[in-house]
Amino acid sequence: MLKGLRQIDPYVAGSQPAEKNIIKLNTNENAYGPSPLVHQVLKDFDASDLRKYSTLDQAALCQLLAENLGVSADQIIVGNGSDDILSMAFLAFFNSDDPILFPDLTYGFYKVWADLYHVNYHEIPLNDKFEIVTEDYIADNGGIIITNPNAPTGIYKSLDEIDRIVKANQDVVVVIDEAYINFGGQTALPLLDKYDNVFITRTFSKDASLAGLRVGYGIGSPQLMAVINAVKNSVNPYNVNLLSEALAKAAVQSWDYYEDTCAKISKTRDWFAGELQKLGFDVLPSKTNFLLVEPETVSAEALFHKLQERKIYVRFFPKVDRIKNKLRISIGTQDEMETVLTVIKEASL
Amino acid sequence: MLKGLRQIDPYVAGSQPAEKNIIKLNTNENAYGPSPLVHQVLKDFDASDLRKYSTLDQAALCQLLAENLGVSADQIIVGNGSDDILSMAFLAFFNSDDPILFPDLTYGFYKVWADLYHVNYHEIPLNDKFEIVTEDYIADNGGIIITNPNAPTGIYKSLDEIDRIVKANQDVVVVIDEAYINFGGQTALPLLDKYDNVFITRTFSKDASLAGLRVGYGIGSPQLMAVINAVKNSVNPYNVNLLSEALAKAAVQSWDYYEDTCAKISKTRDWFAGELQKLGFDVLPSKTNFLLVEPETVSAEALFHKLQERKIYVRFFPKVDRIKNKLRISIGTQDEMETVLTVIKEASL
Repeated sequence: MLKGLRQIDPYVAGSQPAEKNIIKLNTNENAYGPSPLVHQVLKDFDASDLRKYSTLDQAALCQLLAENLGVSADQIIVGNGSDDILSMAFLAFFNSDDPILFPDLTYGFYKVWADLYHVNYHEIPLNDKFEIVTEDYIADNGGIIITNPNAPTGIYKSLDEIDRIVKANQDVVVVIDEAYINFGGQTALPLLDKYDNVFITRTFSKDASLAGLRVGYGIGSPQLMAVINAVKNSVNPYNVNLLSEALAKAAVQSWDYYEDTCAKISKTRDWFAGELQKLGFDVLPSKTNFLLVEPETVSAEALFHKLQERKIYVRFFPKVDRIKNKLRISIGTQDEMETVLTVIKEASL
Repeated sequence: MLKGLRQIDPYVAGSQPAEKNIIKLNTNENAYGPSPLVHQVLKDFDASDLRKYSTLDQAALCQLLAENLGVSADQIIVGNGSDDILSMAFLAFFNSDDPILFPDLTYGFYKVWADLYHVNYHEIPLNDKFEIVTEDYIADNGGIIITNPNAPTGIYKSLDEIDRIVKANQDVVVVIDEAYINFGGQTALPLLDKYDNVFITRTFSKDASLAGLRVGYGIGSPQLMAVINAVKNSVNPYNVNLLSEALAKAAVQSWDYYEDTCAKISKTRDWFAGELQKLGFDVLPSKTNFLLVEPETVSAEALFHKLQERKIYVRFFPKVDRIKNKLRISIGTQDEMETVLTVIKEASL
């Protein structure tokens, strides 16, 4: 055994089946493609430009995002997916000896980064309705990270409740991961005017239908931006490539298109949730582009396999005790979800 | 002051001037653009594909690289630039209490990653010819990282000498950063057949003229790959986006083109070095796409500013004592370097 090798359990991400002609509802991708402007900018991009390095600060993209979000450009940091931003946030903000807090059921990566970077943490159980309980986060801690709406539950926490958590923890950084905020939730951006300790993360993977492009961003106070920018410049300063920046800019410039498609997905989600409830499913209330559901007449496992036989991929968590009887189903197009419903009806008979 | 904020000195990377019509010789970009096949693949890429996540393992790119390098695909890991690979290598391989070793003059980022990840390190001075001395690395340590050819010196160390270092340190990981190897050096890849403790890093930024795309890779034994893949899956599993993978594949498939352009650059470098020596410059022997040179009749600082006036950007290191009288000049096209030589001749009179 070589000296110095890291002892680490590999994290296993969801599968990306190579099969064609499937209905892929297992990784919360956006059912509708990128905007026409994204297509155009890609078409017009000159590969010759790739011989030179990208900018270090993605100033042009930050400026467009700032205008879109109503903050200033120096409050924004861009990264190689929100995973990159979150990973850097752990390095930048969670260096206290006190444990950081996050829910027991949430984005599975928080625990992985905490382990990797030797951050002490405490997982707080969701209540029996799978909700984050505000009072649980009003306690001594070294920082807080909450996904809102939460994943894989889909449950949204109101801005007032998020405000209470941030307000009660002004001695540490509170990270709000808003990967799914544009499917019906209210953003915590207004809290930036009241508190210096809140850091919000976003991604172009869900609302902007650019999962394959890997662009995410973070928004915070100048105090927090100074620290996370120092970390960025100490990990991988050129973390966003030229094509990613160009296409992300196009996405921001065509935000009307994305608002329409997010609204379509939300509408399909609510319709699909209602249909599943009619079939006796337990459906957690969702403000995301997915539903966490529990079938009544068949097991989650049986339904998972039945759907896969019909080339419909959803997410099943057999090793996570609290949700091992549930399936997480991303919301596809209305047509796709009608097909899925038909198969579910057959399987539930 | 918030609890948990990281205390860190920001790393400052080289500038990326936005100005047009300059001769940009300050960040060792490739003078010739990407291959015709890269252009074609970009042109044919369908933006619709970006709505889905990339693969997790870039298997297709690894397979092509493996064929090109004569190794097996499972010996390769791909990342968001070689900075990403190197950053992960620090996390994966350098966890001993003993200090890791690297030269005092080398890629400036090694020290930054070591500080960021709390890795103990010892910087070993280059000798007075700016060479890495093999014997200095035959000592107790927690790992070794060497750039070969070295930067910013450009000096190449023979495979036999690299072999001696790897052989003498079989209890730790030896990382060989081969960012510039295809400009005239001999790769350490043959050592993979003899030793399990060597990890080689590469980038598409220099030889493949894709700095703006951010793709790098690492090559090592199965034992090392298991650890660094676990780290990758714990930091940012989707670290290479779909466009990056597609264009990097195209680059590997058009490697003849890149061999030609690297040979052209090497030829221009040797010619330019000879011309500078005729002018009395001290020129370190280089097997890279840059030269580290010291003017005789003017100061490095004066020449730096003179070149910048004429829109020629080179790299000047006024804060690095041993090379504060030198300039690092990337090798552009033959035409560009003839222009640069003319300006240098004027400035040196």
